[in-house]
Amino acid sequence: MKNDLKVEQFGIHYMLDGYGADAVILSDAVALRHILDTLPTKMGMHAINEPVVVEVGAKNRKDPGGISGFVMIAESHISFHTFPKRGFVTIDVYTCQNELDTDKLTREFTEFFKLKEVDEYTKKRGTKYPVENIY
Amino acid sequence: MKNDLKVEQFGIHYMLDGYGADAVILSDAVALRHILDTLPTKMGMHAINEPVVVEVGAKNRKDPGGISGFVMIAESHISFHTFPKRGFVTIDVYTCQNELDTDKLTREFTEFFKLKEVDEYTKKRGTKYPVENIY
Repeated sequence: MKNDLKVEQFGIHYMLDGYGADAVILSDAVALRHILDTLPTKMGMHAINEPVVVEVGAKNRKDPGGISGFVMIAESHISFHTFPKRGFVTIDVYTCQNELDTDKLTREFTEFFKLKEVDEYTKKRGTKYPVENIY
Repeated sequence: MKNDLKVEQFGIHYMLDGYGADAVILSDAVALRHILDTLPTKMGMHAINEPVVVEVGAKNRKDPGGISGFVMIAESHISFHTFPKRGFVTIDVYTCQNELDTDKLTREFTEFFKLKEVDEYTKKRGTKYPVENIY
């Protein structure tokens, strides 16, 4: 790459690991799908495919089964994996926007899943993304 | 939640942002799909749905279009978003395994995409995941 390449930040990646969630909500595929149907618009994003929601059976001691969901938004994505029997949900919201209202996301998820405890983390992604086309 | 709840780490989330990639490979939907078809097994993971690969048109100055892909693996996922004109790819490999050979992933992706520069990052996810069912 040229040394004088102008770069900018590509996007923001928000991660939430939620504990003590409501087991009924974590098991409700319809409600979970509704989140993927509505959240992109609510956050100013644009879904580019139908959300995929899959129920996953118990696999081993660590994984007692749950529901996984994913929706592609324009060149980024939202995903979750729930574990009703452990009251656990792990969520990713990755956007190519320069700004993301992470407090709003945390409020939305905390309320929806009735989370008792939350670990959230935000990572800048693609910090050397070229401002112009290079090819 | 009970104070005496035994917890463990749920999983590992590996992120790679790659620069100076080969534009032809970044545009090759068949090759990209092949990665999603083969990588889970190679890394000891188990895909639970067919990979989804979507070509995305140019959207604005920042987003000149590319290809997005996603595969659900047992209660976790692999995703990528490519931007051929910027030589950029952003990848996530999230596993509920306790160990992940991130050096192998970086080697695989660097070789496949012919990356000139890489930023990689690994985040422990779900560090308070209950060892036993709580419901």
